[in-house]
Amino acid sequence: MIEKMERQQGVGGIAVDWSGLYATRMGKVTASDIRERMKLLADRSIIQLGGGLPDPALFPVAEAAAACARILGDPAQAATALSYARSEGHEPLRAWIAGHMTALGAPCGVDNILITNGSQQGLDFVARLLLSPGDTVAVEMPSFIGALRAFDAYEVRYAALPTAVEAPLPGGAKFGYLGPDFRNPTGTSLSLAERTAVVEKAAAIGLPLLEDGCYEQLWFEGAAAPSVFALAVQAARSVEACGVLHAGSFSKTLAPSLRTGWIAGPSAVIRKLVLIKQAADLATSALNQMLVLELAAGLEAHVVRARALYRRRRDAMLRALEDGMPPGVTWTRPEGGLYIWLTLPPGLDGAAVAERALMEDQVSVISGAAFYPVEPRRNTLRLSYSLASEADAAEGVRRLGRRIEAMMALA
Amino acid sequence: MIEKMERQQGVGGIAVDWSGLYATRMGKVTASDIRERMKLLADRSIIQLGGGLPDPALFPVAEAAAACARILGDPAQAATALSYARSEGHEPLRAWIAGHMTALGAPCGVDNILITNGSQQGLDFVARLLLSPGDTVAVEMPSFIGALRAFDAYEVRYAALPTAVEAPLPGGAKFGYLGPDFRNPTGTSLSLAERTAVVEKAAAIGLPLLEDGCYEQLWFEGAAAPSVFALAVQAARSVEACGVLHAGSFSKTLAPSLRTGWIAGPSAVIRKLVLIKQAADLATSALNQMLVLELAAGLEAHVVRARALYRRRRDAMLRALEDGMPPGVTWTRPEGGLYIWLTLPPGLDGAAVAERALMEDQVSVISGAAFYPVEPRRNTLRLSYSLASEADAAEGVRRLGRRIEAMMALA
Repeated sequence: MIEKMERQQGVGGIAVDWSGLYATRMGKVTASDIRERMKLLADRSIIQLGGGLPDPALFPVAEAAAACARILGDPAQAATALSYARSEGHEPLRAWIAGHMTALGAPCGVDNILITNGSQQGLDFVARLLLSPGDTVAVEMPSFIGALRAFDAYEVRYAALPTAVEAPLPGGAKFGYLGPDFRNPTGTSLSLAERTAVVEKAAAIGLPLLEDGCYEQLWFEGAAAPSVFALAVQAARSVEACGVLHAGSFSKTLAPSLRTGWIAGPSAVIRKLVLIKQAADLATSALNQMLVLELAAGLEAHVVRARALYRRRRDAMLRALEDGMPPGVTWTRPEGGLYIWLTLPPGLDGAAVAERALMEDQVSVISGAAFYPVEPRRNTLRLSYSLASEADAAEGVRRLGRRIEAMMALA
Repeated sequence: MIEKMERQQGVGGIAVDWSGLYATRMGKVTASDIRERMKLLADRSIIQLGGGLPDPALFPVAEAAAACARILGDPAQAATALSYARSEGHEPLRAWIAGHMTALGAPCGVDNILITNGSQQGLDFVARLLLSPGDTVAVEMPSFIGALRAFDAYEVRYAALPTAVEAPLPGGAKFGYLGPDFRNPTGTSLSLAERTAVVEKAAAIGLPLLEDGCYEQLWFEGAAAPSVFALAVQAARSVEACGVLHAGSFSKTLAPSLRTGWIAGPSAVIRKLVLIKQAADLATSALNQMLVLELAAGLEAHVVRARALYRRRRDAMLRALEDGMPPGVTWTRPEGGLYIWLTLPPGLDGAAVAERALMEDQVSVISGAAFYPVEPRRNTLRLSYSLASEADAAEGVRRLGRRIEAMMALA
């Protein structure tokens, strides 16, 4: 066959050059620094204060193994687990999530829930539902980089979404994206007053909101304030009239690679998103959804363990920062989640610090600039306490502090 | 909290009306008749000749249970299985697929493979890579409905992709989509001469091709001809210079709900698609990818069983059609895959036949019109022999024949 084709075509005679063929939307899409850094995770000599990965020590491995055995050991369940799920999601899991949202103050039914491959797919779908090229989306500055990459795919512009109570929201945006709980990348949260205000202000100008709720269960200091979604549902007296969509996830509470999250919102919007799910990948794995449903029975106990571990690590990292950072460096004090945000003295480039810390000090942190869709504040870094042991994190912060001090002296 | 909000806002005072907010691309997206019909699958009194679902009796349940136990029983493997996979995919599975593609005549390396959530996600990603609103995509008429829904999301126009050896390809399209093997919905295949010709003609006008290879292993009468991808790789003497992308899947050979497929192509194109994967849902479930890799060791034996079952069912359905269809009805004779395509006498509407067959005869078939993106031929039906027993299929075809005959008499 090969020889025959060669005779017909000549060597390389029918090559296609792809480089000029890509759609405009591909122009802004570039490799995520974080995803690239994840490739370094296999190198055990590097202290990982970069990516916000859940600690695998927390994964419910034994429970997952038992659940798999139960599901695949029952012929009827096994057939369901390996057959296409409905695009909306596995009905019993949707019902569980509806109950979960209801318990958190946002009364929902099954028809208010779409299962997605983690909350990331929910962000992509909402962007696909609402955004056309040239549209504006309002985001907190800085914002979760995965959300920015999802929105970039629709060739959008960005406006800042201020969250102070009195700050006016920008006009003309198609929706606003926000993460009220210990958010990625800053670790900061919105107060109840700020949440209430953003719901009111957004509704007043007809601005839909997309709430990223993937960290809301990881609180350390008493339960988080009600979600923006819950406040909007309560204010509209029904989920069907509310102007907020909520992206949820089991990635930070159970395990990321079950790739199971959800979007909650008015059923009319969910029906539209189901059509997007059909076109995007038909359905989320039924096996994974059934696994998550089994594991969800133990979610609370599991989250209690995660909170205790991450709180201890946050405390250790805050102590290490107090001890190790030179004057002029400031940082956030998160009440949950996985992240601390460092602000360096003006003029010091976080990307240069991150690069030298990785190459010379074997410490991985993330430059803050990438979290800004426009006008990056370059003197910033994101640290995570999720993965490194307390001793490693203390050593890593010590090295980072020395590196920053040395670079400040030269600046 | 609820009372406080009510006092502030009044009842329903901050509702948002979503109906005018959707992006233009949502206009063409409608519910798939097939997906809607799948909801009827639970009704056991209906004879299922509609959806092309693999028979759950073929699923490797015991093997999957054993593989789950092995993976989750080993601490290192369990940590990998439940942590985020790389966006490119689980490296050992990519290597397995590269070897599989190489064995099928298209020499590939790991960098030529992106793991996707089934081949459907691959179709969406290629559309996202190449299509802008208003662009034209060339497709066979009729075509797989899932591909049309994926392309619709990018607000495209359609041209016909003729596959006869001498037929010229349309100019001005961004890419051509084709399924050369026992394709959905017609069950027909391209000859080797037609495959070779489409590769040459497409390369001559610089038209990239997207090959849907999800049925290629389900041949009944001796191995399928080399894939269009393999011919293009051979003609270009390297995958890096070839103008064809190949979407593959384990859904029809192992089980659909592991949601694991792939795109094969030049590594520069794959790198772009990896960025799309990051923005769309970060990564496919590592657990599912590791499961597929374990099951892939037994793929050949498994596919042999599937071929034998589906060949027997095809034969039975062809016999039932000979016996039960009135004169004037014609159908395809597939050499593999899951589908038979019926052409009714002109003027008889397949949608009306499908509706009455379902409601009055308890037989589910799919109207053919939905498989045409433009100018539907309405006197068509798609039947599948994948799910019903031979006896049920014979009875279903008998009822369908009587229904068609009765409607012909009235037409």
